[in-house]
Amino acid sequence: MSTSPTSSAVPPPRDIWYLGVDGGGTHCRARLYDADGRVLGQGHAGSASLRFGVSHVWQQVLAATHEAVTAAGLPLASLSRVHAGLGLAGAIDATTWREMAAYPTPFASVCVRSDAHTAVLGAYEGGEGGILIVGTGSCGMAHVDGRFSSVGGWGFPLSDHASGAWLGLQALREALLCHEGLRAPSLLAERLLDEFGHEPARLAKWQTDARPRDFARFAPAVFEAADEGDILATALRRRAIDDATLLARGVLDLGVTRLCLVGGVGRALIPHLPTWLRQRLTEPLGDATQGAFLLARRLTVRERTS
Amino acid sequence: MSTSPTSSAVPPPRDIWYLGVDGGGTHCRARLYDADGRVLGQGHAGSASLRFGVSHVWQQVLAATHEAVTAAGLPLASLSRVHAGLGLAGAIDATTWREMAAYPTPFASVCVRSDAHTAVLGAYEGGEGGILIVGTGSCGMAHVDGRFSSVGGWGFPLSDHASGAWLGLQALREALLCHEGLRAPSLLAERLLDEFGHEPARLAKWQTDARPRDFARFAPAVFEAADEGDILATALRRRAIDDATLLARGVLDLGVTRLCLVGGVGRALIPHLPTWLRQRLTEPLGDATQGAFLLARRLTVRERTS
Repeated sequence: MSTSPTSSAVPPPRDIWYLGVDGGGTHCRARLYDADGRVLGQGHAGSASLRFGVSHVWQQVLAATHEAVTAAGLPLASLSRVHAGLGLAGAIDATTWREMAAYPTPFASVCVRSDAHTAVLGAYEGGEGGILIVGTGSCGMAHVDGRFSSVGGWGFPLSDHASGAWLGLQALREALLCHEGLRAPSLLAERLLDEFGHEPARLAKWQTDARPRDFARFAPAVFEAADEGDILATALRRRAIDDATLLARGVLDLGVTRLCLVGGVGRALIPHLPTWLRQRLTEPLGDATQGAFLLARRLTVRERTS
Repeated sequence: MSTSPTSSAVPPPRDIWYLGVDGGGTHCRARLYDADGRVLGQGHAGSASLRFGVSHVWQQVLAATHEAVTAAGLPLASLSRVHAGLGLAGAIDATTWREMAAYPTPFASVCVRSDAHTAVLGAYEGGEGGILIVGTGSCGMAHVDGRFSSVGGWGFPLSDHASGAWLGLQALREALLCHEGLRAPSLLAERLLDEFGHEPARLAKWQTDARPRDFARFAPAVFEAADEGDILATALRRRAIDDATLLARGVLDLGVTRLCLVGGVGRALIPHLPTWLRQRLTEPLGDATQGAFLLARRLTVRERTS
């Protein structure tokens, strides 16, 4: 996957733009770049996880894109000269990538990978290394010898260890037990049940349509209550620490020496990780949107030179 | 809720029938009774959990009812003289009972309660006691001083401790970790992944539409592998034992002295429960369908005498 010497011999054309999209379980971010990587405009939309289907994701991506193109002062017609790179939660296999890329859109080209793939590209500016995303969902990715290998990331509720969605689900589960007197009273349980008027039946109905991001909304309350010494919250945070450590070890075992830990829950976990792991952590050079730009540009450069 | 002396003074009319329905996360059973409690016919249909909505549940209930009435050799027109008692998984509050009972149906009357409510009625032939159902879902119920109080039973994935659905979810979660080398190899993990061609992406897509009973389908594999000494399966069974014990204690704490443990997973857990709990267990006198019959008859007797 490294850029071949010939590619730099071809000067990038002037009126081609690149779109980097980072689509997660809660947000979708789009950034428009020129061929030199300068940001021209940004846009934002809602959940763009592929678990909700190709057409839903494209709706979100196009909404964010229109905002970015408008912010850049370009007409929407210029999308026909935009190469789009998409890093999407739930884009777990080549079938999904192709299905997403085959959708009719106004773009010059579309390349799809998982959000972890673009995140690791962004974090090391296209270089090698490992990443662990822990946000609404979770996924680890290692970029070694030009290959990308993942750890976890198979979605909620079967995977997504340490993620906000899983943490929120566990917290609400335990809160119900506290409410029924089957566990010791807890500050965290009280706060969570507050949101449902302390009526389990309301919570029971809510769960039927609850999506990963709905569960993840309760993760910050766990960290807050843990900081205040709540026993239940501390135990839940402990489980998230262990799960994140397990995934991090999995990424390191794929042969990388450095690891970026990103995502809201991931950042909150850092101070609590074991020392050996904290010593392997490094700060990302760029974000997943930047990585999606690199994905789009690398692909078009390769196409033009091959 | 005890039968008042006046009620027995009114002889039950001859051409009135009673329907007892037991609707769970996987099956729906209907039984037609005469006023003396003799079974005239039975019927069966699919999942009748209220998590899938009132009209879906009625579809299943009516399918099972038609089968039962036909088996009894009665014309469908006789449904207008049938009083129906329904015990349904997910019938967690009075709003739900009313919504379900208000649906247009051919019955003379309809009374709705949770499946745990009818199960405890059936288990003690209308007398007092406690029950713990652990099947696709789980719920505890105590019938004390004429009142019914529940423990757990708030549905999947927030409640349903020790249930087949929860056990299946945990087993698949762990199987994915084994597959990725993050946990030690396991016979159980191999068997579960076999069903998905050892492709995590297939499992990831499957979960999006998976319902509680789909997860519960994998619970028997856990018990089988645990019996064979598989470490992962044994740990999962251990968790189910602890969760079932927690719920059982919750029911006993509501003031009952005896407890029936029913449902497929519940029966499988019995030999592994702590001695103090096994000593409190008793065999149910009747099942939840029988309890639903008692619910329907009790209500109509009350109405005729009040």
